[in-house]
Amino acid sequence: MRFLSETSADGVREQLFTLDGRPGVLWTPDDSTGPRPLILLGHGGGQHKRAPGVLARAHRFVTGGGFAAACFDVPGHGDRPTDPEFDRIATENQARVEAGEPVAPLIAAFQALVARRTVPEWRAGLDALQALDVVGPGPAGYWGVSLGCGLGVPFVAAEPRVRAAVLGLGGALASAAEAARITVPVEFLVQWDDERVPRDQALALFDALGSAEKSLHANPGPHATIPPYETESNLRFFRRHL
Amino acid sequence: MRFLSETSADGVREQLFTLDGRPGVLWTPDDSTGPRPLILLGHGGGQHKRAPGVLARAHRFVTGGGFAAACFDVPGHGDRPTDPEFDRIATENQARVEAGEPVAPLIAAFQALVARRTVPEWRAGLDALQALDVVGPGPAGYWGVSLGCGLGVPFVAAEPRVRAAVLGLGGALASAAEAARITVPVEFLVQWDDERVPRDQALALFDALGSAEKSLHANPGPHATIPPYETESNLRFFRRHL
Repeated sequence: MRFLSETSADGVREQLFTLDGRPGVLWTPDDSTGPRPLILLGHGGGQHKRAPGVLARAHRFVTGGGFAAACFDVPGHGDRPTDPEFDRIATENQARVEAGEPVAPLIAAFQALVARRTVPEWRAGLDALQALDVVGPGPAGYWGVSLGCGLGVPFVAAEPRVRAAVLGLGGALASAAEAARITVPVEFLVQWDDERVPRDQALALFDALGSAEKSLHANPGPHATIPPYETESNLRFFRRHL
Repeated sequence: MRFLSETSADGVREQLFTLDGRPGVLWTPDDSTGPRPLILLGHGGGQHKRAPGVLARAHRFVTGGGFAAACFDVPGHGDRPTDPEFDRIATENQARVEAGEPVAPLIAAFQALVARRTVPEWRAGLDALQALDVVGPGPAGYWGVSLGCGLGVPFVAAEPRVRAAVLGLGGALASAAEAARITVPVEFLVQWDDERVPRDQALALFDALGSAEKSLHANPGPHATIPPYETESNLRFFRRHL
């Protein structure tokens, strides 16, 4: 793990780093020392580790809960090189959608393919981050919607250090079996008029989660318009469980 | 309006009263004076104005938000006389359910019948309560699930003083048209394994609400097992909107 830069704004210290050459970012309370729970965030498709939605939530989790927060660029995103295999599949998928195939199964299959790489990457990331004094070996949380949900379901299912997860804007097509293996508390976000995830698929993914405590929050509007009060709800959810 | 008793516990003053002979209860912060928003609560079927679920939420809204809270016994419930017409229909319905008819449409039709009486009763209750110095003519909220939702949907649709409502554990069968006339913010509670309200009917009622801001919260478990953290969410919801 190699730290590249350290800046500070609004009470939040931001450190860019690479881990085995993969770029990531860590946010912690300014001038903080000692261990604290870490929330790993997964960014959306076409986004990156410092996309506005990720940055705003990471800052809120740090300032409102004293948590550490971190995010990694997904393969083919942000500061990572383009991936010939993923590019080829994306091009093929676009042609299939233009030929009339439904988009949801193609997205689901693609996310499952990417998850085969991100699950081990993020688990190694958790190892490295928890070795830092400012994080430590305590409980971890996960926040991810859309692509961050498609990659998050198999990650949360595989990683026992994650004790609570916010997921959403995703469907059951690719991940129902892995969702059933999740047993930690989940807050699950649905956009009621999501143009990318069919409503019945989103409800089916919530239904498939194996967690005894899970709470679905649905709000009107299209895919990328989660209302700001849900960030406050997510923060309270992590405070209850981490 | 005639006050019958005044007691105090845990920072909450409780006043029993009758209005045109109908029994009600008002909760306000101990030793409070001056106006404050009022939250009217509707109790569940077979319950009454001081049922444990009503009492707990009223206390929380008073102590956590400084609100006034009030509840009226529904016809045929609590301290009100049994109603021969409602008794006759309940007996008929029981026979029809035993003969194999689905229960949800019967419940919906019965609630619509009771609402014809409670809507004008509750509007008159709001008049009388808002005439008190400790309430005043400010905004009002409504909280009601199950029977309290079946009666609450037509009440909230009819009453412009209600600026925010928590509803839930109800279906669209009887009240979709009235739900479409509701335009104030709604927090809508669904029990994912509700044995009395079919899931698709509950989702259809949320869908039918005309509100631009509405948020569905679904949690696992049967009808009467809303988790305690939803009361905290309801309180924050009322604090945002009243």
